[in-house]
Amino acid sequence: MPDGAPLPGEDALTTLIGLVADDMEAVNRLIVQRMDSQVVLIPQLAAHIVAAGGKRMRPLLTLATARMCGYRAGQRHVWLATCVEFIHTATLLHDDVVDESELRRGQASANALFGNKASVLVGDFLFARAFKLMVEDGSLEVLDILSGASATIAEGEVLQLMTQNDIATTEAQYLEVINGKTAALFAAAARLGGVVAECDAAAKDALEAYGRNIGVAFQLIDDALDYAADQAVLGKTVGDDFREGKITLPVLLAMARGDAAERDFWKRTLEDREQTDDDLAHAQALIARHGALRDTVERARDYGQAAREALSGFADGPEKRALDGLIDFCIARAR
Amino acid sequence: MPDGAPLPGEDALTTLIGLVADDMEAVNRLIVQRMDSQVVLIPQLAAHIVAAGGKRMRPLLTLATARMCGYRAGQRHVWLATCVEFIHTATLLHDDVVDESELRRGQASANALFGNKASVLVGDFLFARAFKLMVEDGSLEVLDILSGASATIAEGEVLQLMTQNDIATTEAQYLEVINGKTAALFAAAARLGGVVAECDAAAKDALEAYGRNIGVAFQLIDDALDYAADQAVLGKTVGDDFREGKITLPVLLAMARGDAAERDFWKRTLEDREQTDDDLAHAQALIARHGALRDTVERARDYGQAAREALSGFADGPEKRALDGLIDFCIARAR
Repeated sequence: MPDGAPLPGEDALTTLIGLVADDMEAVNRLIVQRMDSQVVLIPQLAAHIVAAGGKRMRPLLTLATARMCGYRAGQRHVWLATCVEFIHTATLLHDDVVDESELRRGQASANALFGNKASVLVGDFLFARAFKLMVEDGSLEVLDILSGASATIAEGEVLQLMTQNDIATTEAQYLEVINGKTAALFAAAARLGGVVAECDAAAKDALEAYGRNIGVAFQLIDDALDYAADQAVLGKTVGDDFREGKITLPVLLAMARGDAAERDFWKRTLEDREQTDDDLAHAQALIARHGALRDTVERARDYGQAAREALSGFADGPEKRALDGLIDFCIARAR
Repeated sequence: MPDGAPLPGEDALTTLIGLVADDMEAVNRLIVQRMDSQVVLIPQLAAHIVAAGGKRMRPLLTLATARMCGYRAGQRHVWLATCVEFIHTATLLHDDVVDESELRRGQASANALFGNKASVLVGDFLFARAFKLMVEDGSLEVLDILSGASATIAEGEVLQLMTQNDIATTEAQYLEVINGKTAALFAAAARLGGVVAECDAAAKDALEAYGRNIGVAFQLIDDALDYAADQAVLGKTVGDDFREGKITLPVLLAMARGDAAERDFWKRTLEDREQTDDDLAHAQALIARHGALRDTVERARDYGQAAREALSGFADGPEKRALDGLIDFCIARAR
């Protein structure tokens, strides 16, 4: 990636962040405030997570969809965006334990620094605290959306665990996994903006569809990047999915198009997890040879298009244009 | 313990179980039904947990307090007792991961059979499912009680992790740990009976106090049993707390009453975790010599008395008598 050249959609992301900058600052304050506990390990670990930053994509969706739908009356969008980020952070903490990750966003992961036990328990705390925040907000509709999303996330993660190291995994199962582990919370986050703005059911459904489709696109690109990208740019460890034997779309496409010898390679490396130092490079070469990265990105574009269509019914305005541009940004990460 | 001799209060437990037998059967059905998922590992692991049984103390509290307070109108007590058991099961799954337990109730623990990763993720699923059930019940008061209890449980578990292997732990910290890890959910479970029966605030507070105090008593006895009991009777591994370096009241009392050499022993075994085969027996001997088990049981009796007093305002009846007798049962386990 050439230094300094902006990604398509990067200006949209910058615009979007600017449009909700005050709201996001309020979210960050609320995160720190509501992660507080007399049990000092909790704010310590929380501070580590907050400092690690991250794109805050999910709260951004809640804030921006609320504003796009004309919400001006109060701070519910800030409150609910915080709930969403708490749930996301809890799942990250548990993911890192399950994946035995050493790095998260290019920095030492919480489990590497504080241990698996602390990550499990502080994740539980954040999850419980998210529900307390929702109860304070007082809407059963919100609680319904986020308890449903939380159950779907957990189901997706369990399915991912079951399909890991199993090269017989189908594309349908893979899509169910990424719908659970990523798209469900994107969908909920976007729908919540419509809830606080008191949109009608059709508008809330459209927001949810936007969130779900951009979420699937986001994860597809993430899975593509794991076989393609430059580690320094990404701030994540390239080849993680390969080393863990995760069955993602680039692998599924390459395997479907490969011969018996290639299948044996995938079986040995992903299913039996017998890997040598050269195997990642060979996996990348196979994926490139079969156009599997290109087609994964193409698939992400299709979902991006569906997200774009879901936005079409909303009145034009700066937030809508920025949410539209966000789709391009999510996909352009893969170039 | 002599074979066949009933424990004090054992008849009360039997009576209590009989009084709510139909309700508990409904709880068991609902547990199986709502643990269902297309992700087959979830019902598999759930079936293991349900088969493992357990005393179902917490749902018993919700069912019995609801009946004591005259609730006859519907099935909300069954529904909420199921939520309580889901939260409890989720915390058990995560506890076993954190404690690296091989046994739970005398059988192979879920993490030993299915792996730590599955236990973390299925625990998350059960927790999310519990909140979905609460949302279906539709009461913000219930959601407030159980989200608050869940956050307190997680805080207690984190504090336990922080104080583990630290012989400078104070009695106040120990009490905070057991209030979190055990008494908070007992308290919530008992209060919920008052909520469904639409009791006034004073009665709900009294039920919560009953639950909290019996919960503390229950955990004190559990901690005493870890140094005293016969493994076959208990169905738990004796000496677990010692091996893990948990700082419990029997240890705190023995240490406070011991000399410098004994303190060195506790430091080596619990803080530095350098243990030989004879150390558990020596720990048991020190605890016995200083009357630390006796005094831990005595402390449990005090909490039992507070639980008894909390019940005093309720009208006499079979449920009240059985709930009163349950206090004796919890404490008599330690003889």
